[in-house]
Amino acid sequence: MDDRIREHAAILVDWSARVDSGDNVVVSVSEGAHDLAVAVAEALGDRDANFVATYDSDELSRAHLRARSDDDSDSNADANAANDPGFDADPAHELALIENADVYLRLGGGRNTAATADVSGATRQAYRRSRTAVREARMDTDWVSTVHPTRSLAQQAGMAYEAYQDFVYNAVLRDWESLAEEMAQLKTVLDEGSEVHIETAATDLRLSIENRTAVNSAASVAYDSHNLPSGEVFTAPADAEGTVTFDVPMTVDGTPLRDVEFTVENNAVVDFTAAQGEAVLAELLDTDAGARRFGELGIGMNRGIDRVTDRVLFDEKMAETVHLAVGRAYDACLPDGESGNESAVHVDLLADMSGDSRLAVDGETIQRNGRFRWEDGFNAEP
Amino acid sequence: MDDRIREHAAILVDWSARVDSGDNVVVSVSEGAHDLAVAVAEALGDRDANFVATYDSDELSRAHLRARSDDDSDSNADANAANDPGFDADPAHELALIENADVYLRLGGGRNTAATADVSGATRQAYRRSRTAVREARMDTDWVSTVHPTRSLAQQAGMAYEAYQDFVYNAVLRDWESLAEEMAQLKTVLDEGSEVHIETAATDLRLSIENRTAVNSAASVAYDSHNLPSGEVFTAPADAEGTVTFDVPMTVDGTPLRDVEFTVENNAVVDFTAAQGEAVLAELLDTDAGARRFGELGIGMNRGIDRVTDRVLFDEKMAETVHLAVGRAYDACLPDGESGNESAVHVDLLADMSGDSRLAVDGETIQRNGRFRWEDGFNAEP
Repeated sequence: MDDRIREHAAILVDWSARVDSGDNVVVSVSEGAHDLAVAVAEALGDRDANFVATYDSDELSRAHLRARSDDDSDSNADANAANDPGFDADPAHELALIENADVYLRLGGGRNTAATADVSGATRQAYRRSRTAVREARMDTDWVSTVHPTRSLAQQAGMAYEAYQDFVYNAVLRDWESLAEEMAQLKTVLDEGSEVHIETAATDLRLSIENRTAVNSAASVAYDSHNLPSGEVFTAPADAEGTVTFDVPMTVDGTPLRDVEFTVENNAVVDFTAAQGEAVLAELLDTDAGARRFGELGIGMNRGIDRVTDRVLFDEKMAETVHLAVGRAYDACLPDGESGNESAVHVDLLADMSGDSRLAVDGETIQRNGRFRWEDGFNAEP
Repeated sequence: MDDRIREHAAILVDWSARVDSGDNVVVSVSEGAHDLAVAVAEALGDRDANFVATYDSDELSRAHLRARSDDDSDSNADANAANDPGFDADPAHELALIENADVYLRLGGGRNTAATADVSGATRQAYRRSRTAVREARMDTDWVSTVHPTRSLAQQAGMAYEAYQDFVYNAVLRDWESLAEEMAQLKTVLDEGSEVHIETAATDLRLSIENRTAVNSAASVAYDSHNLPSGEVFTAPADAEGTVTFDVPMTVDGTPLRDVEFTVENNAVVDFTAAQGEAVLAELLDTDAGARRFGELGIGMNRGIDRVTDRVLFDEKMAETVHLAVGRAYDACLPDGESGNESAVHVDLLADMSGDSRLAVDGETIQRNGRFRWEDGFNAEP
């Protein structure tokens, strides 16, 4: 076994999920994640924790959901029934498994990212709705989501398999304690600050962050962070004004978006253009009133992620990028009792900060040309 | 997908497990059983049943058990600890999953039958003891165990992959209703009979079956039969006398046994020989007093199984064979309140009845040269 798989498992179990002796762990294994699952099973054995492995196969899901919903039927009568698949709510055995678990580890990594492409949206949504209590029980565990590098994910990233493995392990096998300390500095600046100012050749945007709390997303349940890799600090802006260009390529609902430009007035996107994907963008912004406002400002700080791979789990943590999400804000960033931006959507859009750029809080430069002020090579002046 | 996989899934779900709409099903998926699991997930969707798939990987088990027990340690101190792996008894999440399940479907079919060869016997036994309530909860469900044909199982059988697939589907895709009716005839004969007499060129054995109840093992929970394929009728002999030769090759504890001959007096094996494996046989018979007595007489009736594959799930159901197990008897065959032969072991030994042979009950010939009296080609006289 590649040593990096065992290192991945050790970080997942110890740093991320903080597994203790005697913990009851559910390990959700995707079709392509077998090798990581072996390393996790071994790590859990070393720590005297108990595990049940579930098989989270996209192909099993597709077969079941299509059969259950009659998505797979040719007849018109059955096609009508597809709108009401009638899933039983939160089956007792599934719910009991999760409710009795201390830790839930999701090992992503499928064999075909399009494996469920012919399951209808109505069926997916009905299934999702039927599993509300299961999902909430999962959120009550010390849950962590990670991915094992598979050929399918390499393909999605447009990368050779071996190069993609290197990419994933560079992102995951960090000195997380040290990164958490570095991110804590940025969190302090944001928690104490009132206004963020982002400037690049194509962006001049001001965001109010007064009374908001930043999250140090350090890939550990101890930091309320549930993704491995992580490596971002994010907060919920209260107000925004200016122009912003998102020049990092991304895919939204299967459609590529390129060079998105927003004009923001009185905390709402009033004008937008895109070099590609403008129609999907228009649809997104028209979802509801909250979809024209920013719910999240995130600042990527993971220097192990050095390229875009069209997978937000990695992209949004990339060092020398910032992202703004249109739509829903996270409660963790809001003062008690206050509700932030509400929306049915939450879509991250990324801007490159590696070139001529400045990130300032209350007029003080925090990052210049991609370098934070505590990093080597930082110069406050351009 | 090979149509036979869908047919296998349909028999498993409908005939064997009798799955109803709304049932909560656990599908245990071995490493090599993915394709059958897809077909089962689809069949369960068609029947509006809910499923959780567990991943029963020998490689995960090996990694976990070795780490947990320190079997994987080089140090002497740890090697001593291997005798006490200290598994937690019946972890709550694992137990809750099974206790809340109506049906448990085990889809065997690994990728390496030797995958756990370096897990110590002490560790296996300690793990097994720690899962007593889980195992009992599983026995309380409508559980069925089957196998998906894999290259690993083909290799164990000494067969090419495609030929092994044909073999498995011949055994599984039977007209089970018709076979159940045929087996019911034999069950009636055995239930009403007092003495079985088995004769071949090398066997002359009499077994008392008075007051015993035969099980019609028709591969369905409706018949208290939990294996697919099945196809045997078995009972628990009360007494035995004579000589018997087991000429069907088999493997016991990893050691091949060939041409085993027993001399039985006063219901105990008093003498034995074997062309191969005599030492293992001696060890087996010396386990305890019950290991020298027969706990089961089984009569194979599945004509889809036409060769020995060194896997008892298939071998003991093969038509034109009988088997006797040394050791423990099944409660289902005994009168209420009566305990049958007790032993820590239960090892099946098979005799070929396809040649010159006779199986009689109370002096009446039931099978001659492999043909039952209700089959074409039966002749009561030699």
